Amino acid sequence: MNTTTPHPPAPDALQVLAFDIFGTVVDWHGSIAQEMQQRYPQVDGDAFALAWRAGYAPAMARVMSGELPWTLIDDLHRQILDTILPDFGLSHLGETERAQLNHVWHRLAAWPDVVAGLTRLKAKYILCTLSNGNLNLLTRLSKQAALPWDCILSAETFHAYKPDPRTYGGVARVFDVAPDEVMLVATHHDDLAAARACGLRTAYIERPLEYGAQHPKDGQAVAANNLHARDLLALATLLGC
Amino acid sequence: MNTTTPHPPAPDALQVLAFDIFGTVVDWHGSIAQEMQQRYPQVDGDAFALAWRAGYAPAMARVMSGELPWTLIDDLHRQILDTILPDFGLSHLGETERAQLNHVWHRLAAWPDVVAGLTRLKAKYILCTLSNGNLNLLTRLSKQAALPWDCILSAETFHAYKPDPRTYGGVARVFDVAPDEVMLVATHHDDLAAARACGLRTAYIERPLEYGAQHPKDGQAVAANNLHARDLLALATLLGC
Repeated sequence: MNTTTPHPPAPDALQVLAFDIFGTVVDWHGSIAQEMQQRYPQVDGDAFALAWRAGYAPAMARVMSGELPWTLIDDLHRQILDTILPDFGLSHLGETERAQLNHVWHRLAAWPDVVAGLTRLKAKYILCTLSNGNLNLLTRLSKQAALPWDCILSAETFHAYKPDPRTYGGVARVFDVAPDEVMLVATHHDDLAAARACGLRTAYIERPLEYGAQHPKDGQAVAANNLHARDLLALATLLGC
Repeated sequence: MNTTTPHPPAPDALQVLAFDIFGTVVDWHGSIAQEMQQRYPQVDGDAFALAWRAGYAPAMARVMSGELPWTLIDDLHRQILDTILPDFGLSHLGETERAQLNHVWHRLAAWPDVVAGLTRLKAKYILCTLSNGNLNLLTRLSKQAALPWDCILSAETFHAYKPDPRTYGGVARVFDVAPDEVMLVATHHDDLAAARACGLRTAYIERPLEYGAQHPKDGQAVAANNLHARDLLALATLLGC
C-alpha cells in the first residue's frame, strides 16, 4: 500500500510537523552496520546494531523511573556500548575508539527521500524534530545530512523522554498553538499513540527496512493515524506540498 | 574602520558560532518603525520602537531578580506594549490589534548581509542562536527571514536570560565543547563581556543603525574582543570562510 488518508486534517489548522528521528528520518541500522563493517569486519554488524538499539528503551526507562538521574542519549548510548562490546569480542577497545564509535549516532544517514520531502513540507509548515536524541546529537546529525529543520526540539528541551506527555504537549506550548495544530510524524506506533493521547495529529511512515533487510517491519496502516505514507515525499503529496 | 583582529583565534579550535539576534542579526528598530508607519502613521515610529525596546532590559531584570516568575519574551513584549500604548495615543487598541502588533517581533527583517554571511560561515562552523527571544519567536523570525541556523538556542532553553552565565556556558555544554571553542557574535559590548567572563571567544559586529539613523551607535573596537567586523560578510572573511 502506498498511502491512505483515514482522517485527513483540515490543512489550514495544521502549523507544525514534529518528526521522530531514529528510524523515521535516519537509517540507524544501516548506518551502524556499515560503520561496523568498515571498522571491525569480523563483527556481525546487523546483530551489533540491533543489540545497541535494544538497550535504548530500557536505559531511558531507568532514567524516567528515577533509578538513573537525567542522562543525555549520547551518554546512554555509551553505557550500552560498553555493555555490549564484550558480547562481540571487542572488550579490548580503548577510550578513543569507544568515543569515536559512539559518535556514529551523530553520523547516521538520512533515508533517500528525506531531504527532498522535508524541503517540500518546509514551504508550508514549521518543521521541528521531536526526538529522544540530545541537542548535540540532533544538531550534528542534521548538519551532516543537510536536514532543513526550522527548529530542533529534543527530550533535552523538555527534560523528559518520549512517550512522556511533556514532550508532545511541549511542542504545542513552545510554538503557542493548539495540540491539534501539531502533527507527529513517526514510524513507531507507540510514539504516535502517545502523541494522539496528548491531542496531536499523527502520520505514520512505513520504513520497512528500519531493522535491516533481514528483519522487515510490518508497515500496516493503523486507522487511528490521520495519515499513512510510504515516505516523506508521499507525506508531502498527502499534505498538498 | 572595517575590521581588526586583536586576538585571532586558532581556527581549528573554534567549532560553534552563537549569535545574538536583536540588533546583531535583525533590524528591530527599522522593522518596528516601518510597521508602525504602515499601521498607525500618526505615531512617531522611531520613538515607539525605542520605547518598546527600552522596557526590555528592566522587564528581564524583574524576572531574574525573582520579582516576576519565569516569563517568555513574547509575554514581556506584550506587557511592555500595554504599558507604552497610552503614551502614543493608542490606548484604544483592542486585544486582536495588540496581539498582531506584538507579533511584529516574529517578523523582524534581517540586515542585508545576514543570509549570505551565515551561509558562508555555515560551511565551517555550527551556527546557533543565543538570544533572550523565546523559541517560538526565534523559529518564526528565522523561518520568514530564511536564516540557516543549525540549531536554535534561547534563554528558554536554559531558563535564564543573558547575561546569566548559564546561557553562555550552556552553549558549550549543549555541544560538548570547551567554552573557548564557542564564539559569541553580537553588537552589544555588555553581552560580549559576559560571554568572555565564561571563557567564550567574542566577535563584535558594528551595526551603526541599530537604534535608527537618528541615533547612530559608536561602533569602536574594544580590544578584549577576538574579532571586530563591520557585518557578517566581513566576519566570514576574517574566519576564512
